[in-house]
Amino acid sequence: MSQASHHVVVVGAGFGGLEFTRALAGAPVRITMIDKRNHHLFQPLLYQVATTALATSEVAWPIRHLLRKRKDVTTLLANVTGVDRAGKRVLLDDGSAVAYDTLVLATGARHAYFGHDEWEPFAPGLKTLEDATTIRRRILLAFEQAERETDPAKRQALLTVAIVGGGPTGVELAGTIVELAHDTLRGEFRNIDTRQTRVVLIEAGDRILANFAPKLSDYASKALERLGVTVELGRAVTRCDAEGVVFGDKQLAARTILWAAGVAASPAAEWLGAKADRAGRVLVEPDLSVPGSPEIFVIGDAALVLRPDGRPVPGVAPSAKQEGRHVAATIKAKLGGDTAARPFRYKHAGDLATIGKRAAAIDFGWIKLTGWLAWWLWGIAHIYFLIGFRNRLAVSLSWLWIYATGQRSARLITQGDDDKT
Amino acid sequence: MSQASHHVVVVGAGFGGLEFTRALAGAPVRITMIDKRNHHLFQPLLYQVATTALATSEVAWPIRHLLRKRKDVTTLLANVTGVDRAGKRVLLDDGSAVAYDTLVLATGARHAYFGHDEWEPFAPGLKTLEDATTIRRRILLAFEQAERETDPAKRQALLTVAIVGGGPTGVELAGTIVELAHDTLRGEFRNIDTRQTRVVLIEAGDRILANFAPKLSDYASKALERLGVTVELGRAVTRCDAEGVVFGDKQLAARTILWAAGVAASPAAEWLGAKADRAGRVLVEPDLSVPGSPEIFVIGDAALVLRPDGRPVPGVAPSAKQEGRHVAATIKAKLGGDTAARPFRYKHAGDLATIGKRAAAIDFGWIKLTGWLAWWLWGIAHIYFLIGFRNRLAVSLSWLWIYATGQRSARLITQGDDDKT
Repeated sequence: MSQASHHVVVVGAGFGGLEFTRALAGAPVRITMIDKRNHHLFQPLLYQVATTALATSEVAWPIRHLLRKRKDVTTLLANVTGVDRAGKRVLLDDGSAVAYDTLVLATGARHAYFGHDEWEPFAPGLKTLEDATTIRRRILLAFEQAERETDPAKRQALLTVAIVGGGPTGVELAGTIVELAHDTLRGEFRNIDTRQTRVVLIEAGDRILANFAPKLSDYASKALERLGVTVELGRAVTRCDAEGVVFGDKQLAARTILWAAGVAASPAAEWLGAKADRAGRVLVEPDLSVPGSPEIFVIGDAALVLRPDGRPVPGVAPSAKQEGRHVAATIKAKLGGDTAARPFRYKHAGDLATIGKRAAAIDFGWIKLTGWLAWWLWGIAHIYFLIGFRNRLAVSLSWLWIYATGQRSARLITQGDDDKT
Repeated sequence: MSQASHHVVVVGAGFGGLEFTRALAGAPVRITMIDKRNHHLFQPLLYQVATTALATSEVAWPIRHLLRKRKDVTTLLANVTGVDRAGKRVLLDDGSAVAYDTLVLATGARHAYFGHDEWEPFAPGLKTLEDATTIRRRILLAFEQAERETDPAKRQALLTVAIVGGGPTGVELAGTIVELAHDTLRGEFRNIDTRQTRVVLIEAGDRILANFAPKLSDYASKALERLGVTVELGRAVTRCDAEGVVFGDKQLAARTILWAAGVAASPAAEWLGAKADRAGRVLVEPDLSVPGSPEIFVIGDAALVLRPDGRPVPGVAPSAKQEGRHVAATIKAKLGGDTAARPFRYKHAGDLATIGKRAAAIDFGWIKLTGWLAWWLWGIAHIYFLIGFRNRLAVSLSWLWIYATGQRSARLITQGDDDKT
């Protein structure tokens, strides 16, 4: 197998890259998986690391361990710096290069600040394990500082968390942080009452969970308010700094600001010198290949893929996996001599979001669910999709423990610096 | 209770400080616990975090959570910069101060380089969670770099781990690292065979586990050699750098060097302007108070406490706990009007060390155990002493999983910089 002459290089071991590699099993190719990290990250649960419910090792696993049985796959921990399309080589930061016959870029997305990158130090986003432990550290340190703060105004600012962006991530962060403050930490401090903590969810649009059916948005808003979250709609953030956040005509003194608003694609478009949309997503052909380079494919959040109705395919795990499977099928067909173009068709599985640990909103289109039933469905679905029995067991235990006791397992402050983890 | 006038300040929530606080429960005092970290660390298992067997949250727990039911205790996350003995105040880095009636310093120890601090960047020690994740990251990165390295000599240096110091920590690191390389990672790389990994344990003395009975030292050496560890005795390390380590007339090319040799006490002696030994441990009175300040006590690794035979009390958890209980009893007696000096008497519980996941050496003095029975005893003892049922459960599961499968759960590389975590 590893003697196969056709060399497929995959960059990025997220949901798209990993699913592509799986689907390509058995094809007469050699595969090289390149990622700048040594682990696959189960991003749908990353917010639970940021809010101390799960430990990092419960949502991330070594890529080469996941692929250990695939003798046709070589895993490399390396930083890609560019793509030499003419020479068919991926360029690495140590000056070396990896030649490919077929290249699949599944490099994902980072959060974007709409041209205000100066906000990032004050409002970290949530994409990597480092992001999650940074956010966890900031949330916990704010309580510690409040315990020592004597000025009432400064103390309230330390006890105020602003979350920018009313999508699923913002909703999930808001719900779990308010529970952390009002339940988990309750009674552990002597000078402050953590129930005084204010969690404010700021959404520029006229409703949260805009991709969901309107009635689910209303349900989520009410459920969040019940938990103690303040939902602010219809005002865009115009400033983030050490003092707090300004949105529309409102100013909020908050020492903790979390960014759950925009995402920007990885530098794949720059590497390729390919056309991209404003969010940096590569404009791909219907078969997900790059215009002019039928041997290069871009999948997942790094690509802009349009649905028949013109709306972009959402940046969620299921779409990245579907695209990965599609490209694998295309490559297998080509190797078999069938070079007919195969347009990708996205099947929307549905939208899910949890609100704290008692409620969730699920929109399957044909059916809409809310409340505790939706929460359990969400939990079962996510545990099912977790890779590997052991993590399923560990995560189930962690959740059951939190559900039963309100306690959380990963409340450690171990970073010395926001930039490092 | 919290209205009590007598204020006891404890600095350090390690085994000594925590046990002291527990033993003082019910006394008519207010207690303030100050630690520069938000978590208590179960150091005896820290080497398992460094070797990917356990996650950080499995060996560390928030101090204020451990003390949440003690309404007489206020926990502060703060850096102490000094002690004003005349004014009876502990000075903090934010310029504020905390007044005390009784002060207990339980500030522990760091590793020492025998006057060669320039070795530290090349040979990290193992005292904090950051140390553990730094070591974990270095070990895992060395394999990743070896997978990409084409020069055979450089590759072998990347696959060589030198451990300096043949005490329990060095023995436990050596045993688990060689298992990680030979078993856990086996088959996950394509360009290297991790079984080629060399683990060398360097001890300046004439035997490892010098505190144990000689026959246990011999057993441990043989058990390590069987696992594939090279034990080097009788040569002191004279250099550590990016190339490797030099000991006596030998030079070893090793890209990973771990320091398990000397320990140096915390700055407690400097804070007090008190006499200390060469290792920085405060020379205390028989009742563990500081000469000239009967209201100040130093316990645990920060203090030099001598046994009747003149040997120092070992720097292990049981002695720190015994000292904590002793000082608590002294304070209770004083508050009750009994001011008679109460000399501390150390009871040696025994010495334990594991060798990989199949063997251990236990020296209770009256009985010496080796092999798998000792390993299980060690495991049961450590799980028993873990604070909190949940962690016991989590650690038990992790160990059973590793024992059954050889797989490890916490193989994440998440740091960007050795200095930060």
